[in-house]
Amino acid sequence: MLTYIYLIAITAEAMSGALAAGRRNMDLFGVSLIAFLTALGGGTVRDIMLGNFPIGWTQHPPYIYLTIGAGLATMLIARIMHRLHRLFLVLDAMGLIAFTIIGCNVALGLDYSLPIVVMAGITTGIFGGILRDVLCNRTPQVLRHELYASVSLMVALQYLLLRELGMDENLNMLVSFAAGLSIRLAAIRWHWSLPVFSYAPERWRS
Amino acid sequence: MLTYIYLIAITAEAMSGALAAGRRNMDLFGVSLIAFLTALGGGTVRDIMLGNFPIGWTQHPPYIYLTIGAGLATMLIARIMHRLHRLFLVLDAMGLIAFTIIGCNVALGLDYSLPIVVMAGITTGIFGGILRDVLCNRTPQVLRHELYASVSLMVALQYLLLRELGMDENLNMLVSFAAGLSIRLAAIRWHWSLPVFSYAPERWRS
Amino acid sequence: MLTYIYLIAITAEAMSGALAAGRRNMDLFGVSLIAFLTALGGGTVRDIMLGNFPIGWTQHPPYIYLTIGAGLATMLIARIMHRLHRLFLVLDAMGLIAFTIIGCNVALGLDYSLPIVVMAGITTGIFGGILRDVLCNRTPQVLRHELYASVSLMVALQYLLLRELGMDENLNMLVSFAAGLSIRLAAIRWHWSLPVFSYAPERWRS
Repeated sequence: MLTYIYLIAITAEAMSGALAAGRRNMDLFGVSLIAFLTALGGGTVRDIMLGNFPIGWTQHPPYIYLTIGAGLATMLIARIMHRLHRLFLVLDAMGLIAFTIIGCNVALGLDYSLPIVVMAGITTGIFGGILRDVLCNRTPQVLRHELYASVSLMVALQYLLLRELGMDENLNMLVSFAAGLSIRLAAIRWHWSLPVFSYAPERWRS
Repeated sequence: MLTYIYLIAITAEAMSGALAAGRRNMDLFGVSLIAFLTALGGGTVRDIMLGNFPIGWTQHPPYIYLTIGAGLATMLIARIMHRLHRLFLVLDAMGLIAFTIIGCNVALGLDYSLPIVVMAGITTGIFGGILRDVLCNRTPQVLRHELYASVSLMVALQYLLLRELGMDENLNMLVSFAAGLSIRLAAIRWHWSLPVFSYAPERWRS
Repeated sequence: MLTYIYLIAITAEAMSGALAAGRRNMDLFGVSLIAFLTALGGGTVRDIMLGNFPIGWTQHPPYIYLTIGAGLATMLIARIMHRLHRLFLVLDAMGLIAFTIIGCNVALGLDYSLPIVVMAGITTGIFGGILRDVLCNRTPQVLRHELYASVSLMVALQYLLLRELGMDENLNMLVSFAAGLSIRLAAIRWHWSLPVFSYAPERWRS
């Protein structure tokens, strides 16, 4: 089941990448590249961070076609994207959670210590969006708006805790999705966010 | 012969990096670093993506000196660079093609599947320019203007097809350069470009 | 002793990352991530460049807590940071030197050639700051202002030369810190900087 959600997840992420590329007036190739990197960049950064070669998607070319296809399809349906706004946010949240759990499992399989497992989960969850924003020359959104990266952290911690307590894997995933989705969607609905640090010295070079 | 073209290619890329650094008023060190990364960054990203360690240039220090030297020399001849504009575009196009073919061959040597071989070629061709633009805080040019990244894609596909069909390696390279250069230069001359995706919603957070 | 200086160094770098994140109004999570990447990103890029897996900090979780803690603490004392300005610059300079020497030693331990050892030292010294600036969407400061990256280069060259000449390791480090700190602080005091390359053609696409 995680595989299906993963496929939905990379599709949703690819679409978010394509929209960001469209805001920068990129061409077909740029849209494809940003879609690909947004969807598979988180896992790529995780695999590099963990020294886990070959990198996941290099062994699964269909993931490449799927993300590029989703990116290009987004160009066609861009005009009606605002109507799909809510659906899109739900898919994106599911993707965040699926990415986080998958990232934790990759690190667990490589016998990394728990703090690194958590970081592998978060990295998989949020770095696609960070790469997207860096390549589109804007400050990473995931570090500024409603609870997003912190949902990834929370899901990782809860998933690992329940796993440690011996909960059945499938049940654990169900609980993770339920909790993660609830919080993420509530955060969007009521604009929950972490405290923001605003620093504006007049003359200070950090 | 590919080696000579490679040396010309990294020189041309280093110069393009130095000019971009100059637009950001960087110091000597910044110019050197950006020149180096523009020239050798594509191969670096490719080697990391393929898990191909040690990374190419770490075994060939002269490449480091050449790219930094080319970057610093560019500062001296910046005033006459506009006169060399056309020569520079030809060298840059040759570099793009040489990088693409080299990248494909590295991946072929590591037994990656064909889609990954194509991506390794394109990555080698365009990621130096992408790193340059990210470090110079601008939206990657290669994803926005005249056919560039797509020339890399086309060269990779044609090269691999002819290789599969059993064409002699040297002849194949000659054909790749002829076709790639023609298209790239025609694209510059007549402003050929891919369709652009412009997305400007009034209120939509992707 | 280098370990203690290293701990001070990553703390100082984490604080500089937190301040940069604050200028972009990032949330708690963003501040933590940028603090972590500024402090440990240089070593991460070095380890990837050298193919040195597992990456250093993945084996030392306390470094993660220290840098994130330092980043969050910075939010609390941000108002008095300007009073600590000078202390901060000294710590930052010590960090630059410690990072450089550590980076050289990692590459030496992997039997890389001297030019790559120098680049590993500089990469460790300056890439944390470069990642910070890329993620905060600004042109890397270390490539534009008073001697900074070049202090790292100088320290690396001097350290390796004295090492080659057979100087005692501890004495060598002392000399490196004395020379590096003097030059960096003098550069700040009297605004020493490298020549800047300013390139502003009217119509030229590099």
